Amino acid sequence: MLGLMQSQPLLISSLIEFAARNHADGEIVSRRVEGDIHRYTYKDLAARSRQLANKLDAMGLVPGERVASLAWNGYRHMEMYFGVSGSGRVLHTINPRLHPEQVAWIVNHAEDKVLCFDLTFLPIIQAVHAKCPQVQQWVVLCDTDRLPADSGIPGLVSYESWIAGQSDQYRWPQFDENTASSMCYTSGTTGNPKAVLYSHRSSTLHAYAAALPDVMCLSARDSVLPVVPMFHVNAWGLPYSAALTGCKMVFPGPALDGKSVYELMIESEGVTFAAGVPTVWQMLLGYMKPGGLRFSKLNRTVIGGSACPPAMITAFQDDYGVEVLHAWGMTEMSPLGTLCTLKNKHLELPKEEQMKIRQKQGRAIYGVEMKIVNDAGDEQPWDGKSYGDLLVRGPWIIDSYYKGSGNPLVRGADGHGWFPTGDVATIDPDGYMQITDRSKDVIKSGGEWISSIDIENIAMANPAVAMAACIGMPHPKWDERPIVAVVKKPGAEITREELLKFYEGKTAKWQIPDDVVFVDAIPIGATGKMLKTRLREELKDYQLPTAV
Amino acid sequence: MLGLMQSQPLLISSLIEFAARNHADGEIVSRRVEGDIHRYTYKDLAARSRQLANKLDAMGLVPGERVASLAWNGYRHMEMYFGVSGSGRVLHTINPRLHPEQVAWIVNHAEDKVLCFDLTFLPIIQAVHAKCPQVQQWVVLCDTDRLPADSGIPGLVSYESWIAGQSDQYRWPQFDENTASSMCYTSGTTGNPKAVLYSHRSSTLHAYAAALPDVMCLSARDSVLPVVPMFHVNAWGLPYSAALTGCKMVFPGPALDGKSVYELMIESEGVTFAAGVPTVWQMLLGYMKPGGLRFSKLNRTVIGGSACPPAMITAFQDDYGVEVLHAWGMTEMSPLGTLCTLKNKHLELPKEEQMKIRQKQGRAIYGVEMKIVNDAGDEQPWDGKSYGDLLVRGPWIIDSYYKGSGNPLVRGADGHGWFPTGDVATIDPDGYMQITDRSKDVIKSGGEWISSIDIENIAMANPAVAMAACIGMPHPKWDERPIVAVVKKPGAEITREELLKFYEGKTAKWQIPDDVVFVDAIPIGATGKMLKTRLREELKDYQLPTAV
Repeated sequence: MLGLMQSQPLLISSLIEFAARNHADGEIVSRRVEGDIHRYTYKDLAARSRQLANKLDAMGLVPGERVASLAWNGYRHMEMYFGVSGSGRVLHTINPRLHPEQVAWIVNHAEDKVLCFDLTFLPIIQAVHAKCPQVQQWVVLCDTDRLPADSGIPGLVSYESWIAGQSDQYRWPQFDENTASSMCYTSGTTGNPKAVLYSHRSSTLHAYAAALPDVMCLSARDSVLPVVPMFHVNAWGLPYSAALTGCKMVFPGPALDGKSVYELMIESEGVTFAAGVPTVWQMLLGYMKPGGLRFSKLNRTVIGGSACPPAMITAFQDDYGVEVLHAWGMTEMSPLGTLCTLKNKHLELPKEEQMKIRQKQGRAIYGVEMKIVNDAGDEQPWDGKSYGDLLVRGPWIIDSYYKGSGNPLVRGADGHGWFPTGDVATIDPDGYMQITDRSKDVIKSGGEWISSIDIENIAMANPAVAMAACIGMPHPKWDERPIVAVVKKPGAEITREELLKFYEGKTAKWQIPDDVVFVDAIPIGATGKMLKTRLREELKDYQLPTAV
Repeated sequence: MLGLMQSQPLLISSLIEFAARNHADGEIVSRRVEGDIHRYTYKDLAARSRQLANKLDAMGLVPGERVASLAWNGYRHMEMYFGVSGSGRVLHTINPRLHPEQVAWIVNHAEDKVLCFDLTFLPIIQAVHAKCPQVQQWVVLCDTDRLPADSGIPGLVSYESWIAGQSDQYRWPQFDENTASSMCYTSGTTGNPKAVLYSHRSSTLHAYAAALPDVMCLSARDSVLPVVPMFHVNAWGLPYSAALTGCKMVFPGPALDGKSVYELMIESEGVTFAAGVPTVWQMLLGYMKPGGLRFSKLNRTVIGGSACPPAMITAFQDDYGVEVLHAWGMTEMSPLGTLCTLKNKHLELPKEEQMKIRQKQGRAIYGVEMKIVNDAGDEQPWDGKSYGDLLVRGPWIIDSYYKGSGNPLVRGADGHGWFPTGDVATIDPDGYMQITDRSKDVIKSGGEWISSIDIENIAMANPAVAMAACIGMPHPKWDERPIVAVVKKPGAEITREELLKFYEGKTAKWQIPDDVVFVDAIPIGATGKMLKTRLREELKDYQLPTAV
């Protein structure tokens, strides 16, 4: 027997119309590539999203065709989120930090018909446009008078002239909520990139979940700064959750240095909540500390993308009174999987006990099921000690990659398909998951596993260390032994011996690295994560000190 | 082109399994009919829900068959929410305040196969069981040793002996998320009651929405007291949202007097959030005030079911520091439609300005679309002044009643079906809806409409008035004129003339009631709402003072 409720598909167009109606004057503030600050409202956003939808109709783009963006966080990019997906096309957000060759490859693989880009990325498009013949229209996300005169790109138009003259009224099409809405290529370290294809259903359910009090806790009282880029897994879904809640949105554009983020965005716009990867926060705190600066309204921040160093959690909470919410997710997961908030029973715990919890990646959000399994696929207990490969399933988790680039799911004993995350993790009895390592980064020494992340966190807690990366080196007796590559803080001094001594008492003796290598920089990838494969290449001639 | 996300139905069984896994030791505390306090965890709840599911399988109940409850808020009732719906049957929650004849009628109309009831309601079942031949099993929600010896009800069993011996392992069936999960009869004032049939999809989406920061803001840090009954629109969906968030649940059982609610529940169990209708809160505040009692942890309360008197909002906020969230919904809406929380731009407003907003029923939750229309069906502007019939649509709003008892939807100019709420409302530019009246209660005087609620609220603001009800009386010249029926507070004195004078300056002169009628009591219906039809009957011999 079926229920007798109204059957309405969950569509992204209903998000923007909801915001336009219920938060007509809700603010969207953007720092533009041009350098100035732009302000408008959800009502304006909706009107211009409809203009864009009309333009795509006028071009004759059929439902499901791909429209790409190569852009910073800003209002025009947000219009694409709603105008492209809402009208039934698929928004393909491209990571501008990729090599132009890779950009050309994914534009062709996705068969993008339109590509809209920020002026910053003109050189990339100049390098690739001739290699992407199926792109019918190149659009610069700028005012008409900023269109480059002789770009060499045929038919190049400014976004403003492109959508000008289109009606701001539009009847959003109604269709199956499982229809594709957006896509994002993963920054795989081997082979060609693969695309994850999100749907209206997955994006809408994720938008509800992301706004929950135990997740990002978004409300109409918030002013939200997504430092996490809109080209990276839909900025963790924030544009959708923003429309769902009507919160004020503050877009930083290309200005991600500490001063800009602090002055122009967080303080000027009364930001209450910010989301980003650890490297950006490192820059922000690095800017604030010397001048003794404080936050006026910022009260919480979600940190994800890679494990957050405990020292950063402490700095935010103790020095600035900002709650740090550790998060974990993946491109294949829309991206949110877990978020670290305390439970009722933890509220009276001493701060140090709370801190131990906060260092974990957190609890599953309803909609995400987790389990950890050993090499044989047997589920491991949630005792906070047993580790295993982390598998997930849920309505906003990938089933397969675009164009048959792989069906990653593994079949569980329960008959369900589970996505193997590639992470090794523990889960405690309260459901808090902690990533021990990436399965490919874990160091296998004498049959035991050493977490490269643990080794890095200890080094990062040393005041002289700016960044640390732990990798395994071949060893004749133990198979592998850990070494740690370290970038010193400007002006700080520390010797190999001092740092090795610093490890004593902080981890088991056999887990202490065999060596410290001081480097000028550690390679960081397009999504802000350390590229250990490249570090291993850079250290390919390295030799371990004589084995003990 | 479809997205490539996992396709998983939204099922109620996944809520309880989520809670069992991620909040295994999360507490559920119940005051039992037996008078004692019962405690267990989400893990226990899940295990016993599975036992119940196994029992229903063992009985051979096919998917879609109805299992009824006639019960207070408590842990066994919550087990039914998950065991009955999760296993594919339909939970029919019966309002015990109905007349036994009505109970028999709806049990037969729903074709309930099993009926589980609290001992309190034994007399009702004794009166109706012989009239309900299709009920295969009557079950008392009690321990085995509390089963009445000679009830006269054939085959009566205690719930504990009934599910005893069933395995606490169960493989929840997977099925279409549009499958019916529960049903609730509306307390219609005319004709036979009609049933609303909720689905797994509607209940799950509602569970996400209800927990949002701008709705009930539920997290794992909350201790939640649902005073709103579980037989009344699924206790506003709280059992589902509870499992989704893992909050502590505190069930008051039958003890809804001020002292019990305050001492045994709110204070002893560290309640942070409570939900109920105004009449219960009236009793609570009435108990607390004389002794100067305070709340230790309660920080917010949702008040709905009928319009909340402004004096009550002020009392909670100013005297007790408890935020009052005004809510509006209907049985046909699962039930939540709007909730009143402030926006970012309101946070700096003076308290009196904020109070004006808080008196409104609030903003639409994403998932609920609203419009107001005039008699011709034309949409009225959101200017806070224009009023019209309030229409709604969304995935947790009724399409049609059970068994073809009516298709209430009206077709809008947009081609969509809209549910007419029967309320008259205004909506302001910020989306805040305010109910002016029920369309059947509004007083039509000389071509103008007078809101009976406005007239009641003014009377309620008078310290001598405990309760007030405004109804229209036939008038030769003006068609109708308002009068107000008033219950005085114990020991308080006020005359007709004093109260009429109290109206001066508080409303337009032509809206001031023509008369005050002092009564001992105002009839309150099963869901805590004033029954104006009955009041009109009681006053059928009343004559208006000589017309002006």
